[in-house]
Amino acid sequence: MSESERKVDQLRLLHETGPQTLMGKLLRKFWHPIALSEDVAAGKARPVRILSEDLTLYRGASGKPYLVGGRCAHRCTLLHTGWVQEEQIRCMYHGWRYDGAGLCTEIPAENRPRLTPIRIAAYPVHEYCGLVFAYLGGEPVPAFDLPRKHVLEQEGHTIIANKQIWDCNWFQQVENSLDAVHVSFAHVWGRVGRFGSSVTANIPELAYAETSAGVRQIATRSKDNVRVSDWTFPNNNHVVAPGPEKEDPWADISSWPVPIDDTHTLRLTLYAVKTTDPDKIASLKVKYDLGYSPMAHADELFQGIVEGVHEPGLISAQDYVAVRGQGAIYDRSQENLSTSDAGLAFLRRIFLRELDAIRNDRPTKQWSRLKEEPHLAPPPAAAVQAAE
Amino acid sequence: MSESERKVDQLRLLHETGPQTLMGKLLRKFWHPIALSEDVAAGKARPVRILSEDLTLYRGASGKPYLVGGRCAHRCTLLHTGWVQEEQIRCMYHGWRYDGAGLCTEIPAENRPRLTPIRIAAYPVHEYCGLVFAYLGGEPVPAFDLPRKHVLEQEGHTIIANKQIWDCNWFQQVENSLDAVHVSFAHVWGRVGRFGSSVTANIPELAYAETSAGVRQIATRSKDNVRVSDWTFPNNNHVVAPGPEKEDPWADISSWPVPIDDTHTLRLTLYAVKTTDPDKIASLKVKYDLGYSPMAHADELFQGIVEGVHEPGLISAQDYVAVRGQGAIYDRSQENLSTSDAGLAFLRRIFLRELDAIRNDRPTKQWSRLKEEPHLAPPPAAAVQAAE
Amino acid sequence: MSESERKVDQLRLLHETGPQTLMGKLLRKFWHPIALSEDVAAGKARPVRILSEDLTLYRGASGKPYLVGGRCAHRCTLLHTGWVQEEQIRCMYHGWRYDGAGLCTEIPAENRPRLTPIRIAAYPVHEYCGLVFAYLGGEPVPAFDLPRKHVLEQEGHTIIANKQIWDCNWFQQVENSLDAVHVSFAHVWGRVGRFGSSVTANIPELAYAETSAGVRQIATRSKDNVRVSDWTFPNNNHVVAPGPEKEDPWADISSWPVPIDDTHTLRLTLYAVKTTDPDKIASLKVKYDLGYSPMAHADELFQGIVEGVHEPGLISAQDYVAVRGQGAIYDRSQENLSTSDAGLAFLRRIFLRELDAIRNDRPTKQWSRLKEEPHLAPPPAAAVQAAE
Repeated sequence: MSESERKVDQLRLLHETGPQTLMGKLLRKFWHPIALSEDVAAGKARPVRILSEDLTLYRGASGKPYLVGGRCAHRCTLLHTGWVQEEQIRCMYHGWRYDGAGLCTEIPAENRPRLTPIRIAAYPVHEYCGLVFAYLGGEPVPAFDLPRKHVLEQEGHTIIANKQIWDCNWFQQVENSLDAVHVSFAHVWGRVGRFGSSVTANIPELAYAETSAGVRQIATRSKDNVRVSDWTFPNNNHVVAPGPEKEDPWADISSWPVPIDDTHTLRLTLYAVKTTDPDKIASLKVKYDLGYSPMAHADELFQGIVEGVHEPGLISAQDYVAVRGQGAIYDRSQENLSTSDAGLAFLRRIFLRELDAIRNDRPTKQWSRLKEEPHLAPPPAAAVQAAE
Repeated sequence: MSESERKVDQLRLLHETGPQTLMGKLLRKFWHPIALSEDVAAGKARPVRILSEDLTLYRGASGKPYLVGGRCAHRCTLLHTGWVQEEQIRCMYHGWRYDGAGLCTEIPAENRPRLTPIRIAAYPVHEYCGLVFAYLGGEPVPAFDLPRKHVLEQEGHTIIANKQIWDCNWFQQVENSLDAVHVSFAHVWGRVGRFGSSVTANIPELAYAETSAGVRQIATRSKDNVRVSDWTFPNNNHVVAPGPEKEDPWADISSWPVPIDDTHTLRLTLYAVKTTDPDKIASLKVKYDLGYSPMAHADELFQGIVEGVHEPGLISAQDYVAVRGQGAIYDRSQENLSTSDAGLAFLRRIFLRELDAIRNDRPTKQWSRLKEEPHLAPPPAAAVQAAE
Repeated sequence: MSESERKVDQLRLLHETGPQTLMGKLLRKFWHPIALSEDVAAGKARPVRILSEDLTLYRGASGKPYLVGGRCAHRCTLLHTGWVQEEQIRCMYHGWRYDGAGLCTEIPAENRPRLTPIRIAAYPVHEYCGLVFAYLGGEPVPAFDLPRKHVLEQEGHTIIANKQIWDCNWFQQVENSLDAVHVSFAHVWGRVGRFGSSVTANIPELAYAETSAGVRQIATRSKDNVRVSDWTFPNNNHVVAPGPEKEDPWADISSWPVPIDDTHTLRLTLYAVKTTDPDKIASLKVKYDLGYSPMAHADELFQGIVEGVHEPGLISAQDYVAVRGQGAIYDRSQENLSTSDAGLAFLRRIFLRELDAIRNDRPTKQWSRLKEEPHLAPPPAAAVQAAE
């Protein structure tokens, strides 16, 4: 294998998410958000596909969520179509019942005890800020700490959660997070919103550093316009951005592109805004374009039309055109990187290092939540001014 | 090949329907319904796909139906788009004409006689009870006897025929017919209808026996609630069930899941009801949900919503969620059978025995219509009571 | 390889269009129309897929059209979503800019000069009669001459251009052009229009001859009804046909089925009509069914329903049913040719001869525009009469 073949081969590792792939194994060492809390009511179930695995998310009568295998072990019917009974779920086909740990607890028509218990997959879940997180890896289950943020837990703040599905690979979305230059172009595309106005004065100087939690990126546009952002391994981006309109507060935005499978991504985003006023919150929920789907508007967007959205929908649409425009799976063998792709290269080196550890059965890095919080500088004065 | 690999391999044989597969060859030894009689008017043609073969069904000026190849032998255009002329069909592209035996009887622009006649496929058809049946195998053509039922030919009864297409393999639908336990769960799913009420008191004791025509299954729920049903090889299920509403007669229901190809099934169903009153029949046709397609409502159904249907639509919807929920092709290598799957195991053994005969060029069983009719006991008293 | 395998293998060569295929290489030696001129306004860009290549067609501020690669060389985002600036195009993702020759002329965030310039694909374009033509081959670029026609450049005539996309291979459409017999059947299908009336009296005698430009076909239906048409290599059909209604002028119709890829074809058609009256032209544009898409009506058409179209839409619909009815890619190994397929056989021999030259690196024929013009006889008297 030539050097360039080796490189292409290595780049291919970056987008695979199935349970048997190196990246699939690496991602299974982390908690990932898998649904909005409001997506599943007490006593109800729904199917979720995460990391190329089909699963059933249900909430017991108590309100506690559970994540188990997608199909009944008996004749493989989709389990989410069954009945949630107390804290268990019963298959609609022949009534096999499972508890939240995946153990089959009843086989109605079975008249002989089984020698070995029947089990389906089951994974720990944890609710945080209106999202259901899950851990799909093996023992030991890490504490739910890395995804937490001080800014998401502040008094006097409200969290608004949003969900989108994109029809492309997750990793090109992660790369987009570490790519400060795109902001100056992609985010003035179609329509220049308040975010676009705040960042496009000039192209930033970029610097990157690995932290205990992931990567710190510093984009310097001028002495008064420095954007610092701490990105958390393996897929959490965190930025501050102006609100949809001038009178709206800036928001802390924390976003996770989570692989559904190799060509679909679940994007769960939290907006932390400093208000507890119910009217303000209701108005913000409208302006935050909850429910807007760039994928559903792909035909228009790829013709350059962005309509019917406020600021967050606009930003999503712009990133979608850039990133989905790379293809359902971006073919990195065709790219020509530039000095401005330093963040990307930095990020890939870290990922490839970790994948190499997985391949060779060596321990991966023990990522831990950043000590110093808030890890984002307050909005730079020049940016605030430009946006207002 | 290990024993478990061998088993997986064997299970795979059950779902294949192409002409070169063992099951495809076995199924071609039987008459199958392929369309509603009303689907093709005199002088008209339509495409049909059956057992992974594309064919043309047309009805001559005389009203007689014919089944020939899907494409013209000349330049392979779809033949159903041509003209039916008397008892023959002419291709719309260059006017080649074929009789109902597949022989090309005219080549308009040909100025030299051909040495060997041109032929396309042609298969015998037979109309019965509002369905067009076809025999896609080789000579000799079996008499049209096995599909007949005394209860479909009774004086004073009316036959209502219905058609559905399901986007999953036929064999998981056959297995469902031999699976009495699912009734107690799947048929109280979504909404409990009159059929659901009649069967769900408890889980039945099951017994199976091979007959001259197929498999007899006896489901005993109590001394007064015994459901006997004679299933006919290779794919005809026959049950009795309450009418859509209390005042409606019980019906004999005979249903064939016929492979379109490995992932699509044509389901043709006859309802025999004891009435000749035109008003009653018109009202029943509405209530029998003719034209309801569970596949077209799949999104709702898999969210647990069953709306806008009466009894037969409800039952179809429930079976669809159970059986389509197993996947487009049910992966039997993942299943865990239980003692209650005795019918399934019994059925598979018979099929595997017959497939083995095909593989080794030995004669398969000569299935013949049951001597004893009616082969279904009258509706059990307790069931009638529960449903009314 | 047996003789019949060799033949099947050879027939397969006829439908392939990718850059590495023999036919793909042959087709790249010719100018092909790739868009309507009106499809791309000054300062705008759009994606085009031609011969299995994804490209960007844009028109500079000056109005000049350019055809460059479909993706930015940097991170492979679709280039048509970018900004046209003067005569160049800038990627929306990171602002890389390209000129019309495919040279990258600016990399905004790059702080080191690159040793080797970045290039994307770029091809010559030429506008003619309301169509944008492109040449996707290597040097030397042939003069834009072969596609020109005297009848398209006449004083007192107006050209109406139309575009359709068909979901099937281009070559079965080319074969249809050299197939005079189909006219007598396919063009009386569904509804007999004025064109159908003019040709269906009887089946013509056929003769074919290779010319400097392509193939001349002569279809003799009677002494007074001789249709001569000069087809131009590799894919331009030219016929005369009655206008949509009795009062409308006959039109010269020049049509190119251009491969988008192996299963999709761009059909660009010019209608030259003898009028300069704006009202007449406006009325003709309505009657020429511009924008009618047989593909969008495929379900109806394959049920034999042709509605809501005038003459040209009807003719398209008839050809679509015949040709799309052969399959997305017509499997020639299943065909049975007849003496009436002489044109087809003649055409294939020429193509296979040229493909053989490509394979063996020998020069292909230097096709040149016909000397004698008009190369179409005026509409035969009997045909005019029949249509009127």
